[in-house]
Amino acid sequence: MADSRTSAADFARQNSGRFLEELMEFVSIPSISTDPARKAEMELAARWVADQLKELGMTGVDIYPTGGHPVVFGELSANDKDLPTVLVYGHYDVQPAEPLDLWESDAFRPEIRGYSLYGRGAADMKGQVVACLKAIESIIHAGEPPVNVKLLIEGEEEIGSPNLAGFINDNKALLKSDFALNPDAGMIAADFPTITYALRGLAYFELRVYGPSHDLHSGSYGGVVHNPAQVLAELIAGMHDDKGRVTLPGFYSKVRPLDEEERAELARLPTDENFYLENTGAPALWGEEGYTPAERVGARPTLEVNGMLSGFTEEGSKTVLPAWAMAKISTRLVPDQDPGEVHAQLQEYLRSHTPKTVRVELDNLVGGPAVISDRTSFGVRAMQNAMQTVWGKPPLFRREGGSVPVVIMFKNLLGIESVNCGFSLLDCNAHGPNEKQHLPTWEKGIATLIHFFYNLAD
Amino acid sequence: MADSRTSAADFARQNSGRFLEELMEFVSIPSISTDPARKAEMELAARWVADQLKELGMTGVDIYPTGGHPVVFGELSANDKDLPTVLVYGHYDVQPAEPLDLWESDAFRPEIRGYSLYGRGAADMKGQVVACLKAIESIIHAGEPPVNVKLLIEGEEEIGSPNLAGFINDNKALLKSDFALNPDAGMIAADFPTITYALRGLAYFELRVYGPSHDLHSGSYGGVVHNPAQVLAELIAGMHDDKGRVTLPGFYSKVRPLDEEERAELARLPTDENFYLENTGAPALWGEEGYTPAERVGARPTLEVNGMLSGFTEEGSKTVLPAWAMAKISTRLVPDQDPGEVHAQLQEYLRSHTPKTVRVELDNLVGGPAVISDRTSFGVRAMQNAMQTVWGKPPLFRREGGSVPVVIMFKNLLGIESVNCGFSLLDCNAHGPNEKQHLPTWEKGIATLIHFFYNLAD
Repeated sequence: MADSRTSAADFARQNSGRFLEELMEFVSIPSISTDPARKAEMELAARWVADQLKELGMTGVDIYPTGGHPVVFGELSANDKDLPTVLVYGHYDVQPAEPLDLWESDAFRPEIRGYSLYGRGAADMKGQVVACLKAIESIIHAGEPPVNVKLLIEGEEEIGSPNLAGFINDNKALLKSDFALNPDAGMIAADFPTITYALRGLAYFELRVYGPSHDLHSGSYGGVVHNPAQVLAELIAGMHDDKGRVTLPGFYSKVRPLDEEERAELARLPTDENFYLENTGAPALWGEEGYTPAERVGARPTLEVNGMLSGFTEEGSKTVLPAWAMAKISTRLVPDQDPGEVHAQLQEYLRSHTPKTVRVELDNLVGGPAVISDRTSFGVRAMQNAMQTVWGKPPLFRREGGSVPVVIMFKNLLGIESVNCGFSLLDCNAHGPNEKQHLPTWEKGIATLIHFFYNLAD
Repeated sequence: MADSRTSAADFARQNSGRFLEELMEFVSIPSISTDPARKAEMELAARWVADQLKELGMTGVDIYPTGGHPVVFGELSANDKDLPTVLVYGHYDVQPAEPLDLWESDAFRPEIRGYSLYGRGAADMKGQVVACLKAIESIIHAGEPPVNVKLLIEGEEEIGSPNLAGFINDNKALLKSDFALNPDAGMIAADFPTITYALRGLAYFELRVYGPSHDLHSGSYGGVVHNPAQVLAELIAGMHDDKGRVTLPGFYSKVRPLDEEERAELARLPTDENFYLENTGAPALWGEEGYTPAERVGARPTLEVNGMLSGFTEEGSKTVLPAWAMAKISTRLVPDQDPGEVHAQLQEYLRSHTPKTVRVELDNLVGGPAVISDRTSFGVRAMQNAMQTVWGKPPLFRREGGSVPVVIMFKNLLGIESVNCGFSLLDCNAHGPNEKQHLPTWEKGIATLIHFFYNLAD
C-alpha cells in the first residue's frame, strides 16, 4: 500500500499541468444555477463531470434528473468490500459573475495570474471537485483502490439545493456510505490546512416595501407620502442594536453558548483582526460586542443585507418618490437555531415595526440549519493525518461562517457525518469578482486527498 | 380688441385637432436630457420648437448653443412698443421613462385613452409649451398682437438647468421683459384653476457608502465587516426623527414660519388627506407632525430618498456582502433655506453619524433655492381674470412642492417675477410611468393663455 501511495502521489505531480488544463476547461463553462438562461450550460457542466467519471472507469455513472438541475453520480469499488466507503460531495454550479465590470479577466475565461487561477467557480467549487477527481484518477492509476468511493456532484448548491434532499431520499441505498467528504469548506490561508467542524446555517429572504401605487414626483408628494425606500432603511436599521446584535424577537434564544474550551481553541486561529482587515480592505471591523472576529464569523449568528434596490439608480438625478423598495436579507445561523423559526421571527419583527403607511411582502428564498460535528471521528483523523503529511503540521480546527445545507442532509437522511475541508483560501473572492484558486494549495490539496484515501485503509 | 379676443378663441377651438396632433409629434421625440445617448433627440426637439416659432412668424428665432443642451428663443412684437412684454418660459427636455415595463403604452408613442394623452412629457411640460405656442398662433391669426412676447425654451430643466443662468446672464438685453410666465406649475384638479405663488427649492445628492474593497461572501465575513447597505440604511433612517422632521443639523433654522393668515388660505385648497390618498394610492399618509398635507407639501421642507442600490438585486439569492451602497437623496426647500447650506448640513450630519467602519462620498448633483412671490402683481391679476373667464370661478392660490430653478434665476438675473401656473393636473404622473395630459384642461389652458395675453393689454 505504501508503494501505491507513493506511486499515486508521483502520478499527480507528473500530471499537474494536464490536471490544471482540465480544471480551466471546467471553469470556462458558465454553469450559473440561478439563471434560467443558463440551462444549456448547466447540462454541459453535468455532462463534463459525468464524462470525467466514465474516463476514470468509475461504475454506475449517470446524470440523474431532478425537479431542477441534475445530479451526477458515480462510484469506485475496492476489491475488499469491507473497506470503508466515503461519499464525496461536490457541486458543478457557480454563483452569478455580476458585477462583471469589476473582473480583471473574463469570469468564464479562466486566466492564470501569479500563483492563482482566476475565474468564477475556480475556488467555489470546481477547483475542489477537480481536485477530488484527480486524486481518484491518481489512486486508480496506482493500482487497487484503497477505499470505496461514491461521488455525488449536484447542480443547485448556489441556489440552496432545493432538490437534493429529494434525490438523497430517493437513492438512500445507492448513496449508503460510512461518512462523507465535503471539500467545499476551504482553508484559512496557504500555510494553514484547516478542518471545519461547524458550519453556519442560512435563512435568506426578499423583503419588499410598497407605498404609493406608482412612482410619484418627489416635489408634489414629498412630505405627505411615506417614502418606501426610507421605510425600508428604517426597517433594516432597526434589525441591529447598538451592540451589533440582531433584534429579531427570539433570535438568540436557541443559540448554543460558546464554552471556555472552545473559545480557547478558536483563539488559536490566525484569523485575528489584522487578518480580516487585510482580507476585506474594510477601514475597520465591526460586529457583535463581546466576541472575537473568529467567534463572530463561526459561532455567532448574523444578519446581512445582500442587496437593496429602489427608485432611480442610473447616472444623474431624477426627482422621483419611488413606489417600492426591495432588500435581499439573509441570516447566518448557528446551532440550534431553526431557519423556519427565524422566518417567523422576521415576520414578527415586520408585524411590529412596519408603519401603516406601507405594505410589506416577505419571501423566504432558501434556508438550512447550522451543523456541528465530531472532531475525533475516523474520517476526520484520516484527513488530519493527510494534512500533517503534506504540510508538515497539524490542521487548524475551525467553525466556518458559510452554510453547507448538504452536510445537514447527509446527517439527517443518510445518518453520516461529513469531513469538511477544502483547498480554496479565505481570500479567494468566492461569490465576488476575481474569484481565484491558489494553485500551489490546489496541488497540495490533490496530494492531501490521495493520502486521505490511503489513510482510510490503514 | 374684443373682436380679436373672440376671433383668437374661435380659431383655437376650430384648430384643436391639429394642435393635438402637433403636441403628439413633439411628445414622440425622446428628448431625455440626462441621457448622453439622447443628444440627437435633444437637438431634434430644439429644432422642432424653433421651426414652430418660425412658422408662427416670430422674429429673432434661434437655437443658442450652451455648455449643454441648447436654448431656443424667439419673439413676437406688438406694434405699440409701450405694451408690456412677457417672457414665456418652457423646457423641451423630459425625464427618463424608466421603469419602462410599468407604462401601459410606449412612453414615446403618445396615445389618447379616455380624456387624456399619455406619453413622457405630455404634461411636464411639452403640453404646456405647445399650449403657449398655440395660444400665440391664435392671437397672431386674430390680428395685431396685444402684447410683446418673448419665448425661452430650454433643454436642461430636468437636470437642474446647469447652463441656464449663464445663458440669461449673457443675454440680458435680449430677454428684457416686464415679467415672466412659467406654465410648468400645473393645477390641482380639472375644476380647480390654480396659480402657484411659491415653489420649493431643491438640493439633490448622491451618497455612496464604501466598506470592504470588494464584494465578500456573506457567510465567511458576515459578522466582522460592517455591511455598507446596512450602514446606508442606518444613515438614511437617522435623517428623520419620530415626528417626521429632518434631523440634518440646522435644517429648520432659516425656514420662514407659516402665519395664521396663510395657513387659513392654504386650508381652502381641496388637497385634503383624501385627495392625497386617492392620488397616490398609499395605504396611509405620513409627514411632519403639526402640519396639514397642503402645508407639508408647499410650505415645509422635506427630505426624500429618490433611489437606492447595493449588492445583488436580480431574481434569486446571492449570498454577497456588498462592497458599496448608494442612495440618491434630495431635499425640497422653502424660503429662506439655502441649497449650499443644506449641502453643508448633510456633510455635517455624515461627519457626525458615519461609523469608522466605512467611507462615504457625497456628490451635490443639482440645487436651487425656493421662491415666493407677490400675489397681487399685474401679471398675476391678468392670469387670475383669464381663469375666471374660462372656468367661471377664481383660481386657487397655492404653494407648490416642486422646484423651478428658473423662477429664481429670472428674479435674480432679470429682476422680474414669474406668474406660475400650467394646465397639467396633480395626478398627471409627471416623472413616473404613464404620464398624462388631461385634454379638456389643455384646451381650456390654450383659451386661458389667449385671454391672459389680451388681459395684459386692457
